[in-house]
Amino acid sequence: MVPSVVGAPGEHSLLRSTLSRVRAIDPAWVRRAEERQARLTKPEGSLGRLEEIANRVCAIQETLDPSVANPTILLFAADHGVVSEGVSAYPQSVTAQMVENFLKGGAAISALARANRIGLRVVDMGVASELPDSNGLTRRRIGPGTKNMAREQAMDPEAAVRAIETGIALVDDVVSEGCRVVGIGEMGIGNSTSASAIAVGLTGRAASEVVGRGTGVDDRTLGKKIHVVERAATFHRLTESDPIQILSRVGGFEIGAMCGVCLGGAAARTPVVIDGFIAASAAAIACRLMPEAGGYLFAAHRSSESGHAVLLDAMGQEPMLDLGMRLGEGTGAALGMTVMASAIAAFTEMATFGEAGVSERGAV
Amino acid sequence: MVPSVVGAPGEHSLLRSTLSRVRAIDPAWVRRAEERQARLTKPEGSLGRLEEIANRVCAIQETLDPSVANPTILLFAADHGVVSEGVSAYPQSVTAQMVENFLKGGAAISALARANRIGLRVVDMGVASELPDSNGLTRRRIGPGTKNMAREQAMDPEAAVRAIETGIALVDDVVSEGCRVVGIGEMGIGNSTSASAIAVGLTGRAASEVVGRGTGVDDRTLGKKIHVVERAATFHRLTESDPIQILSRVGGFEIGAMCGVCLGGAAARTPVVIDGFIAASAAAIACRLMPEAGGYLFAAHRSSESGHAVLLDAMGQEPMLDLGMRLGEGTGAALGMTVMASAIAAFTEMATFGEAGVSERGAV
Repeated sequence: MVPSVVGAPGEHSLLRSTLSRVRAIDPAWVRRAEERQARLTKPEGSLGRLEEIANRVCAIQETLDPSVANPTILLFAADHGVVSEGVSAYPQSVTAQMVENFLKGGAAISALARANRIGLRVVDMGVASELPDSNGLTRRRIGPGTKNMAREQAMDPEAAVRAIETGIALVDDVVSEGCRVVGIGEMGIGNSTSASAIAVGLTGRAASEVVGRGTGVDDRTLGKKIHVVERAATFHRLTESDPIQILSRVGGFEIGAMCGVCLGGAAARTPVVIDGFIAASAAAIACRLMPEAGGYLFAAHRSSESGHAVLLDAMGQEPMLDLGMRLGEGTGAALGMTVMASAIAAFTEMATFGEAGVSERGAV
Repeated sequence: MVPSVVGAPGEHSLLRSTLSRVRAIDPAWVRRAEERQARLTKPEGSLGRLEEIANRVCAIQETLDPSVANPTILLFAADHGVVSEGVSAYPQSVTAQMVENFLKGGAAISALARANRIGLRVVDMGVASELPDSNGLTRRRIGPGTKNMAREQAMDPEAAVRAIETGIALVDDVVSEGCRVVGIGEMGIGNSTSASAIAVGLTGRAASEVVGRGTGVDDRTLGKKIHVVERAATFHRLTESDPIQILSRVGGFEIGAMCGVCLGGAAARTPVVIDGFIAASAAAIACRLMPEAGGYLFAAHRSSESGHAVLLDAMGQEPMLDLGMRLGEGTGAALGMTVMASAIAAFTEMATFGEAGVSERGAV
């Protein structure tokens, strides 16, 4: 059943049709994959999480010959009006500067994508300042950043739906180009404040439980950030809002787009690897809109932001990695996609006991 | 100061000279690396463990341009006389069968090494049965498996030293061929019993605290395994033994060789990535022989074997990954080496704030 997209005006044909295409993954395929795992030359279950990851990818793609060819990270950048409340350690101009850094190949995600042979697509969803022409940049601007969610809604519901549909269209693009696994990452000064407010809205937890230091704010700024999220939660009645309303009231354009990638990936039966806290807030909106999408999502890691663990719990996601990372950009997703690639390599390339002439357990 | 290699007869020139070459890593190089990390375009500390890993590799190689080129896993196989006590779920013949599987490319480590572009060198340290000729196999047999450590010493002290020196010579070989990071892995039916006895000897913990299910034994076999380790600990007075004595009384040829790789890697200023429980028992012997070697070692993961965590604690090692793996073969090391490669890529390829024209923290 397709859920009604409450809070969102109009017909939203792409969003509605995408939701209607998402089906729960079939546990029969997980069982088939488990049966094959038991025949591979290793003690049963001895690859731990790698087995569970491979089995779920089999179910997603409905095959025992799964593929994570042409892995691609979609990296969405946008600015946030809430920075005018003084919630970040860095000036807003850093968003645009970092986009240039991504395009020149000097950022952490640039290095990690190269090292792990992952394609990187940088998308301007609404950076405040004009970005110089660049072949590498995908332009999908919704506006010059969101409004200050502490005082008004960040964007109108039409813009929220447009951001989601932009993500859906982009994942469809990369899948049609042969990409078999997508990662999501983001850049946006102020967006950990936005993700915190989303976490409050979706889970009902207190602001103090989900607000963290983001890029590394001091105690004074942390207090201000908690206060801003508390005020926004009350002002926007977040805990009584539906997911699209939450996104439009306190979200960001890049968060909407990542939510769209989660939904579009699920509709296209393509695994989506979630980066950190901000990406998890987008994934959590997607799961609230369509719980069946959760089966297509893989949490790459647990960051040191407290709100991240809260969102992962709410989605029932167990992260692959716990390396104390808190950078965003898709850096955690890059490492998680490599773990997944190893899981798939073991599943598809290992010999069975029969093929290898190896004695099975209990043949002592 | 070079420790006296107690318990080991003769001069052991390679082991002694190797120990004399191991120096503690220089914390001044860690600080230099931290200073560079602070100038890279990311919030300070935001790459978490990746930063600590890269900083330590800088100190090991004494450079701010560290390299993990030509990563290589040394995979050592040997048989264990203790299998006659009925401590494993698989017959001894599986050791030789799995070596053939490694050489044919059908094992989990074969797939993971390929997927992560890691070289794999398979070494016969003493498999019970004759192995067929193969170009891919490095033959360094000490004997046709160890004796049954439940009733006599597994090998004499000369053989223990020879196993260690074999590992030293092999790491010297691969380093001279351009390898800048080494991983260690193993195959040997019965060797989790051996590793458990080593853990008892080195840490004084009870057998029941360090014996796990290995390849997946049932409750009855687990009880037998605990009893065998308890008996061996008493019979060989393990907690009063020096590291070479422990290795000769309850160790294995492949464990000696991995110990040698840890020492040889440290002497050659080359990081060594430790796989699971069995590899950790070898690393723990190396650290007891020469504590300064610990600075060169990186624990790839924490397996589901309880003794593994005990050994990691004893060495002060924090594992990179916790994926519920318990396969051995170097499979955990392969994933850990990839995390390390990402850490080094970020360190060496990222732009600084100055180079990228990105505003620094606090420039709000």
